[in-house]
Amino acid sequence: MKIGIVGLGLIGGSLGLDLRELGHQVWGVSRNSDTCERAVARGVVDRASVELSLLAKADLVFVCTPIDAIASSVKQLSVFLAPSAIITDVGSVKTAVIDQVGLLWHNFVGGHPMAGTAESGIEAGIAGLFAGNPYVLTPVEATPKEAVMVVEDVVRSLQARVYFCRPQEHDQAVAWISHLPVMVSASLISAGMAETNPLVLPLAQDLASSGFRDTTRVGGGNPELGLMMARYNRDCLLRSLVAYRQNLDQLIEGIEQEDWQGLEKKLTSSQLDRRRFFPQ
Amino acid sequence: MKIGIVGLGLIGGSLGLDLRELGHQVWGVSRNSDTCERAVARGVVDRASVELSLLAKADLVFVCTPIDAIASSVKQLSVFLAPSAIITDVGSVKTAVIDQVGLLWHNFVGGHPMAGTAESGIEAGIAGLFAGNPYVLTPVEATPKEAVMVVEDVVRSLQARVYFCRPQEHDQAVAWISHLPVMVSASLISAGMAETNPLVLPLAQDLASSGFRDTTRVGGGNPELGLMMARYNRDCLLRSLVAYRQNLDQLIEGIEQEDWQGLEKKLTSSQLDRRRFFPQ
Repeated sequence: MKIGIVGLGLIGGSLGLDLRELGHQVWGVSRNSDTCERAVARGVVDRASVELSLLAKADLVFVCTPIDAIASSVKQLSVFLAPSAIITDVGSVKTAVIDQVGLLWHNFVGGHPMAGTAESGIEAGIAGLFAGNPYVLTPVEATPKEAVMVVEDVVRSLQARVYFCRPQEHDQAVAWISHLPVMVSASLISAGMAETNPLVLPLAQDLASSGFRDTTRVGGGNPELGLMMARYNRDCLLRSLVAYRQNLDQLIEGIEQEDWQGLEKKLTSSQLDRRRFFPQ
Repeated sequence: MKIGIVGLGLIGGSLGLDLRELGHQVWGVSRNSDTCERAVARGVVDRASVELSLLAKADLVFVCTPIDAIASSVKQLSVFLAPSAIITDVGSVKTAVIDQVGLLWHNFVGGHPMAGTAESGIEAGIAGLFAGNPYVLTPVEATPKEAVMVVEDVVRSLQARVYFCRPQEHDQAVAWISHLPVMVSASLISAGMAETNPLVLPLAQDLASSGFRDTTRVGGGNPELGLMMARYNRDCLLRSLVAYRQNLDQLIEGIEQEDWQGLEKKLTSSQLDRRRFFPQ
């Protein structure tokens, strides 16, 4: 198949490596000409250009730009592509993307590969990034069945675990497991910085170990990603945040009232509930 | 030196392995006779008993019981020990322990080794657990200097990084980096369980990966430990929880008002502030 990739970062680059390995012809587009050169040099794509016209003959295009550039990329692409061409994206929010893009291109299938590393950029792309990881597809009623099947086949060939759901369900699920944790974790970092005893903060910094490291990892990540989550998944994120705050309020009230039985029950539930996410 | 250990779990067992390796005579006490047998069989102690009288001739005793059993252990020990014997503990809260134990035994030095694994019990003890990890000592004005020096020497011989501070500073520092994260993380797990759309929770469970795994790890831990933190470090923990909630409230308000510049600034600060805890 002739496959185009717009945006040659961690996800776009990793897709290119796998798709070429699978025998597809892969063409890449980046705004940055250095990135195009590196992509060819690293074997991520067969050809690369700063011009979307390079993808004119593509059967399938992965749009791997940041969320706020997906719609404009699709709009510009639509001038060059054949009507039969399929576009899919890799954005971590689906409702907002599909609301915009569905009007721009008929053969559009929303997607979200849930894989990554701490790195970014063309050098971060690695083969096998998607293998064993979830890849969510969110076709809507208007999405052509044929287009969904083509995208599904390609995604399965990456050895990803494919899930289908509605965009709204995807967005609420990732609000819980991805976007809420970023906000909770970021607040954990910044709350401590308000400590007024000058001896405590340096001591806390010396003593912090794996527990604090793990709990603050996602909150200390790329601010642009956190911002995109909040902007484009605002309603679901707020719904999760408000439920979280309610839960935290109950916990604080319990500790204030020295309701130790209640606290033990709550912590025991948390321990059990976590095993529903990560069975031992 | 003749060293006693009361409580043969992860910490007590690991201490025994290192201290015997360093050439000390090590005697262990556990309420459980099976644990005593296993401790001798694993080489964790030279001798073990369910009776504290085994430690009558000890120069130094590590009390490694859960926090709520430290004071009663010291009280019972005080009948057997020579007046020159030194007691130290390994509890994760210091003010509450020292307030109680300081009255029971003059030669007492509060301590907190900040090392552990996900395991517990006598089988969990491992050699070298403390090497490279922080070990906080919290002598107060009434603590004999000689006793502090003895404990410090032994702790340094475990290759731990020794810190000295007041009990109150220790408790506030660990509230920030250890006890608050447990509560924040436990609430993150339980908040999601209140999701009312029946399709979302199973999907979230399927999609949850390393970000959710890390952020919820400490909240899914041993409920008894979390309970002890809250009971014995209540004031410092509440102070941290209230500051955290205030921080979270501001974040929620910013997202509600679509103050994206403010959110980006906050997330950028979190990213930078985390590097003060974990320099790259």
